[in-house]
Amino acid sequence: MGLYVPSSRLAFMSGFPQESGNVFLLSQSGANAGEIVGGLAGRGVRFSKAVSYGNGADLKAHDFLDYATADPESDIVAAYIEGVQDGRAFFDALKRCAKVKRVIILKGGRTASGSHAAHSHTGSLAGSIEVFDAACRQAGAMRAETMDELHDLVVAAATNTRHVTGRGVALVGGAGGGFAVLSADAIDREGLTVPKLDKAAVDKMREYIPVAGSSVNNPIDAFPPEDRLDEMLRTVATANGIDMVFMSPMTGWPPRPPQKSDPEDPGTSSDRGQKLAEKAAVQMKSLADDTNTPVVGLLRTGRMAQMMGFDNDAMSEAAYRAGIGMFSSTARAARTVSRMIEWKGYREGLPDIFGDDDSESSSEVPS
Amino acid sequence: MGLYVPSSRLAFMSGFPQESGNVFLLSQSGANAGEIVGGLAGRGVRFSKAVSYGNGADLKAHDFLDYATADPESDIVAAYIEGVQDGRAFFDALKRCAKVKRVIILKGGRTASGSHAAHSHTGSLAGSIEVFDAACRQAGAMRAETMDELHDLVVAAATNTRHVTGRGVALVGGAGGGFAVLSADAIDREGLTVPKLDKAAVDKMREYIPVAGSSVNNPIDAFPPEDRLDEMLRTVATANGIDMVFMSPMTGWPPRPPQKSDPEDPGTSSDRGQKLAEKAAVQMKSLADDTNTPVVGLLRTGRMAQMMGFDNDAMSEAAYRAGIGMFSSTARAARTVSRMIEWKGYREGLPDIFGDDDSESSSEVPS
Repeated sequence: MGLYVPSSRLAFMSGFPQESGNVFLLSQSGANAGEIVGGLAGRGVRFSKAVSYGNGADLKAHDFLDYATADPESDIVAAYIEGVQDGRAFFDALKRCAKVKRVIILKGGRTASGSHAAHSHTGSLAGSIEVFDAACRQAGAMRAETMDELHDLVVAAATNTRHVTGRGVALVGGAGGGFAVLSADAIDREGLTVPKLDKAAVDKMREYIPVAGSSVNNPIDAFPPEDRLDEMLRTVATANGIDMVFMSPMTGWPPRPPQKSDPEDPGTSSDRGQKLAEKAAVQMKSLADDTNTPVVGLLRTGRMAQMMGFDNDAMSEAAYRAGIGMFSSTARAARTVSRMIEWKGYREGLPDIFGDDDSESSSEVPS
Repeated sequence: MGLYVPSSRLAFMSGFPQESGNVFLLSQSGANAGEIVGGLAGRGVRFSKAVSYGNGADLKAHDFLDYATADPESDIVAAYIEGVQDGRAFFDALKRCAKVKRVIILKGGRTASGSHAAHSHTGSLAGSIEVFDAACRQAGAMRAETMDELHDLVVAAATNTRHVTGRGVALVGGAGGGFAVLSADAIDREGLTVPKLDKAAVDKMREYIPVAGSSVNNPIDAFPPEDRLDEMLRTVATANGIDMVFMSPMTGWPPRPPQKSDPEDPGTSSDRGQKLAEKAAVQMKSLADDTNTPVVGLLRTGRMAQMMGFDNDAMSEAAYRAGIGMFSSTARAARTVSRMIEWKGYREGLPDIFGDDDSESSSEVPS
């Protein structure tokens, strides 16, 4: 379907952001390119260029990878690929690219049914999915298995989610014991853990959090006085065994629905959503900055989001701009982190591309 | 948190539907009960009663199961359970209930991290998850592993998705080759297949569908003339090896964005969303009725939904009222169907509770 280059005011679909960013996209499907640009734009991600190149009759995947490798505007490279015509050229280009950029590839046609569909769509031949996966691993590129995973991994690669090193999760702000239980299950299922906090951390929190109706021993399902909230978050984020904080924003504490008569909040509900989004972004970013512990944001959906007056699009975007990734469920956040750790594992010996340029406006090539 | 009984105008949260339905809910978490009632209400589901019973200090899970078993207003029983105090009483009540109702259970605390969280929340002791799962299987109740699965399985149990018997999927209406490829992958991954259609079916469709730019050999990514659309859908649904149709609604054909100047569509975008929802519901229901092949609805999200002017809430609700389940992704639809088939497999020898009362207003006990 062509090119999307916001800096040249070029787009192949209406409604794409006019603002540039640091993500380069190559896609063999125009509709999927639309889903990727459109879906990620709603989460704050901006693109340097996107190429929808179909069956690659002229330029091919390796040509676009070489372009992205040399492109100073692109730090992250996302790809939707159904088939590769010249395997060696692709692998070599992928190696060059993944050495200096964070590369995330979604391969369509991984299964028998999917590869039959891909053949009808772009004439792509299946090839061995094992060989493709091994090539990605060896090059140091990351694989996504679904469209949702591709979206989540781009957000993770662009935010401080990528700095996660261990597997210990502190789970905070769930506002609901049942939510905390299911979240802990989801975290565990993806190979992460929700470790008990050390006694020092628990004792410190118990000074201002009553025992009745609260749990402070991870998951943290507790209502501290508002002036102790920051302190509580920092205690949790720096406790022994905690490698990251999974948190849904604790704005408006205790959680309560928007009040029309509230003198501090006279705005419309969309004003309020925007205000809460900015408050949440500051809360999560300052926690991450102060403690050097990555903070992974969890959106609340459905009723809870409504009750709290959250605008999830605004919240995702504000957090992203502050360098914090937000995910639509605990399961998706946990899976993303787990893939990220796996990715780092197989980049052993390759340059560190996980540097500190958390802002989406960065246009430096990571060194 | 108490009781929700719409027929008695009793509710423990604001915003629950006032209308009654045929789903009974018991939940050990008030927040999760809110997510279940609120989330499913948005998909058209209505409840007979919901009970949020916490740690079960007085009445326990088996008491509520016995109530549901005898309740003529409840055909489907959904449960969120963290722990069971009297295993034998629970198992016996579950057996009685699952004999005559479609029972779907989400157990919180399935993992080490989750069971620790459940202990903090409702004082529930872990017990063996294997024993719990075996009890469900033996009783003929269905297990959900996540909140999303619980939602999807309730929708499936209440609509014609539950009539699926085989594993062959016809995939139609994707409007996008890349979407079709990833959908086929998702279907395959869940143990279903996207079989090639027989030559007779393909030849019939090729009479009015040009070869260029289209695929009719499953996935069906094709644009027939509008007056042949119904015929095409019926050819696909009755082809050899096809046990169900996965389709995203083919309203407004070819797909195009809302037109302000369109004389046939002068309404606001929400009027249009509602109109398309009703059209889609009729399209899917008549296809299922005419061919006796279950039709499973796929929502489009993001840009594609926007471009087509779809209102997903309206579409889910209208389809549900017509007895058609809609799912937010192909992966979720495929997983749901796969669990449904598994469920039927272990109900061998138990009464058939998958009868034909597809309307959510039904209050008959299935015989």
